[in-house]
Amino acid sequence: MDTRRQEKGAQLKLLFEPRSVAVIGASSKKGKIGYEILRNIVDGQFTGPIYPINPHEKAILDLKVYPSIIDVPTIVDTCIITVPPQAVPQVLLECGRKKVKGAVVISAGFGEIGNFALEKKVLESALECGIRLIGPNCAGIINTENRLYATIESRIASGSIAFITQSGALGGAVLAWAREQGMGFSKFISYGNRSDVNEAELLEYLLEDQQTKVIAVYIEGLRDGRRFLSTAQRVGMVKPVLAIKSGSSKEGSRATLSHTGALAGSDKIYDGAFHQAGIIRADDVDDLLDMAKTLSSQPPSGGGRIGVVTNSGGPGVMVVDALAKLGLKANEPSAETKDRLAFLPDRCSRNNPIDLTVETDPDYYERTLRILADSDDFDALVVVYVPPAFLKSEPISEAVLRARRAASKPFVACFMAGDLVREGVKVLESGGIPNLPTPKRAAKAVWALVERDRYLKSVA
Amino acid sequence: MDTRRQEKGAQLKLLFEPRSVAVIGASSKKGKIGYEILRNIVDGQFTGPIYPINPHEKAILDLKVYPSIIDVPTIVDTCIITVPPQAVPQVLLECGRKKVKGAVVISAGFGEIGNFALEKKVLESALECGIRLIGPNCAGIINTENRLYATIESRIASGSIAFITQSGALGGAVLAWAREQGMGFSKFISYGNRSDVNEAELLEYLLEDQQTKVIAVYIEGLRDGRRFLSTAQRVGMVKPVLAIKSGSSKEGSRATLSHTGALAGSDKIYDGAFHQAGIIRADDVDDLLDMAKTLSSQPPSGGGRIGVVTNSGGPGVMVVDALAKLGLKANEPSAETKDRLAFLPDRCSRNNPIDLTVETDPDYYERTLRILADSDDFDALVVVYVPPAFLKSEPISEAVLRARRAASKPFVACFMAGDLVREGVKVLESGGIPNLPTPKRAAKAVWALVERDRYLKSVA
Repeated sequence: MDTRRQEKGAQLKLLFEPRSVAVIGASSKKGKIGYEILRNIVDGQFTGPIYPINPHEKAILDLKVYPSIIDVPTIVDTCIITVPPQAVPQVLLECGRKKVKGAVVISAGFGEIGNFALEKKVLESALECGIRLIGPNCAGIINTENRLYATIESRIASGSIAFITQSGALGGAVLAWAREQGMGFSKFISYGNRSDVNEAELLEYLLEDQQTKVIAVYIEGLRDGRRFLSTAQRVGMVKPVLAIKSGSSKEGSRATLSHTGALAGSDKIYDGAFHQAGIIRADDVDDLLDMAKTLSSQPPSGGGRIGVVTNSGGPGVMVVDALAKLGLKANEPSAETKDRLAFLPDRCSRNNPIDLTVETDPDYYERTLRILADSDDFDALVVVYVPPAFLKSEPISEAVLRARRAASKPFVACFMAGDLVREGVKVLESGGIPNLPTPKRAAKAVWALVERDRYLKSVA
Repeated sequence: MDTRRQEKGAQLKLLFEPRSVAVIGASSKKGKIGYEILRNIVDGQFTGPIYPINPHEKAILDLKVYPSIIDVPTIVDTCIITVPPQAVPQVLLECGRKKVKGAVVISAGFGEIGNFALEKKVLESALECGIRLIGPNCAGIINTENRLYATIESRIASGSIAFITQSGALGGAVLAWAREQGMGFSKFISYGNRSDVNEAELLEYLLEDQQTKVIAVYIEGLRDGRRFLSTAQRVGMVKPVLAIKSGSSKEGSRATLSHTGALAGSDKIYDGAFHQAGIIRADDVDDLLDMAKTLSSQPPSGGGRIGVVTNSGGPGVMVVDALAKLGLKANEPSAETKDRLAFLPDRCSRNNPIDLTVETDPDYYERTLRILADSDDFDALVVVYVPPAFLKSEPISEAVLRARRAASKPFVACFMAGDLVREGVKVLESGGIPNLPTPKRAAKAVWALVERDRYLKSVA
């Protein structure tokens, strides 16, 4: 990597990990973007100084307001810009005079509505001043490590998943959804029109980011596809990269073109290129989050032989069906393993899915899972549990966690009864086992672990 | 239909709509099936008398206990049987002497564990006494119309979806899930080993049931496939029939065989046969519920031309992609419709998806949806909304409902931000518009409305 590139990378790191942050266009009016972002940064308890900038205000949220970025007494590393679009170039030049390192431009009204000349001017201003720029037309950034919630979107908890998104609104929906599920993120980056910083550079930053274990991306169209793919390929050797690629249909592609001015390209071409670059493709937002949480908590699956343990035949068979559709195999246990399962009562099935039946108990789950994890028969295990309405699921979760701790293979859970298993799912997930609420989603999560292994072996 | 068949049908109706109900094998011990079912019937406030039967108890849950069904002073239409399996034939013979019309046998330990002789004896006893029998090895039945919760599973609210399931546990999971989502069911029928009453007869009963508008089925294997398909075909002319068919993979099929003793058959054959019979196939439990709630609240879609209205490009494009994958078309609005949409600000896109942008308001949604519903351009509409974190979604829901009331086309919503839209979704769904939480699921729900129309036209 050349020096110029290293320098740009270091600057980008500072943009996400600033010593101080300013909101240019801060407002005292609730509901205004310039107010809501400032409030989010303040309420989020950012670890450094926060400077609201507005020539017409004295104080907002008990913070002293400065008329211009020039007037701020200390160093400012990152500016969040929410001024009207035509004012952005001038604001960037002022940031340049202040030696600001990075700017996140929330303001919209550029290329996305055909205003390409103004967007060009914004980029030129940033380049002229040596400022790295995220956006414009973006929903902001989050770094949970230093509690920087520079966005109008939900404040997500800390975790190991980084999410970068071309669509700000979709990013917001994903954040809200992830928060509702109790998931945590390391970084959230809405990159909007990506005048300057693009997907490939963001991947490079996240490759180095210690907090990030899995990278999830929502892409509408790529500007420099070749660089993105080669970067993803390299990043993927260290951390899994997942992506939703939208605009994949003819109609969707046309719509993307009018929405961001980016070329969406043919779906099949993306499919092949993503596969080769080790990017695991998701086909919906739940799928993206399911696979991200699974890859962030489980090791890759050494192969596609999957053991299924259940307390109910039907859901177990549904998992087996869904695995088969994804090319995975719920093979029979070996004779030796069946022998070791002889302790199970006659009513239980020792074929795959291994059915402990409705009258099961935590001990049966633990012993069975330990035997399967010990055996050479399976590469990963799916644990299905559907409790009768009057039984708690927490003791089963504890048993599954005990078996997991003694094992090196990945476990994926499918506890399946909505609010009846809510507490059990909390126990499982806080213990590091992902729960997927339906058979098909559980199978897809396991598939991601197999795909991850396949890619790592292909580049080894 | 011959008289014998009519009689059997009338008897089945009485089984679900009994004047009184007895629980044979009622228990005073919490956690025992014979206690939990009785408690569910009592707490559920069944509208008729409830008789616990047990020779060793005097009173359970403040109800007088009778030593045998023979001792009950009034008529008993339906018995719920939870005694040990070997006692079931004798209990049925006693029910016969009491002129009981129907029995739901919860007890397990029959064909599903290879005990075919005992199951045969159970069936013979029922036939001998003229009793219609659900089960054995089932999770019970619910009729929300008369508040009969004769099951260990969750008490679901009243609604218009009937759910019949071969797997009791899967049925329980679906009930819990549906309840968590605020859905309502008309009937829940876990039919287990279906010694006597089979899927086809249940469809016939539900065809006549006024409370039921949509029938959802979970099937592992069919015993009399031809009769089921011809019945579904007939029922489908009046009410949509949805199904999950599990055991569809080679491995899953083998597992189903060991689990219920039923032959699962080849997946492709089922696919074709279901399509011809107008059965809409679901591939997971969320898919089944999504389509059921959509078909129960929206008219069939006259065709596959779908208008998408959104406040965010990305999610709108994802809906368009997902529609295209299902063979539906997000076509362009006509020039006339575009003219009528001229009131929208320049930043909005008047192509499909029609993008009202993040700065939208309820009025834009209402006017746009009214114009699209009025036009001849589209057969159904998808309304996408992804709110910024600080905006409420209820006013948008109200606007969508106003537009829907003025329209005859189906509407499907995709409000997409977890807890941020929870209140808005409640407003939408209580107003009769289904919400699907992701683009792919919204597209699939619309697809079901198009499929429904296709079937109705094919048999017209």
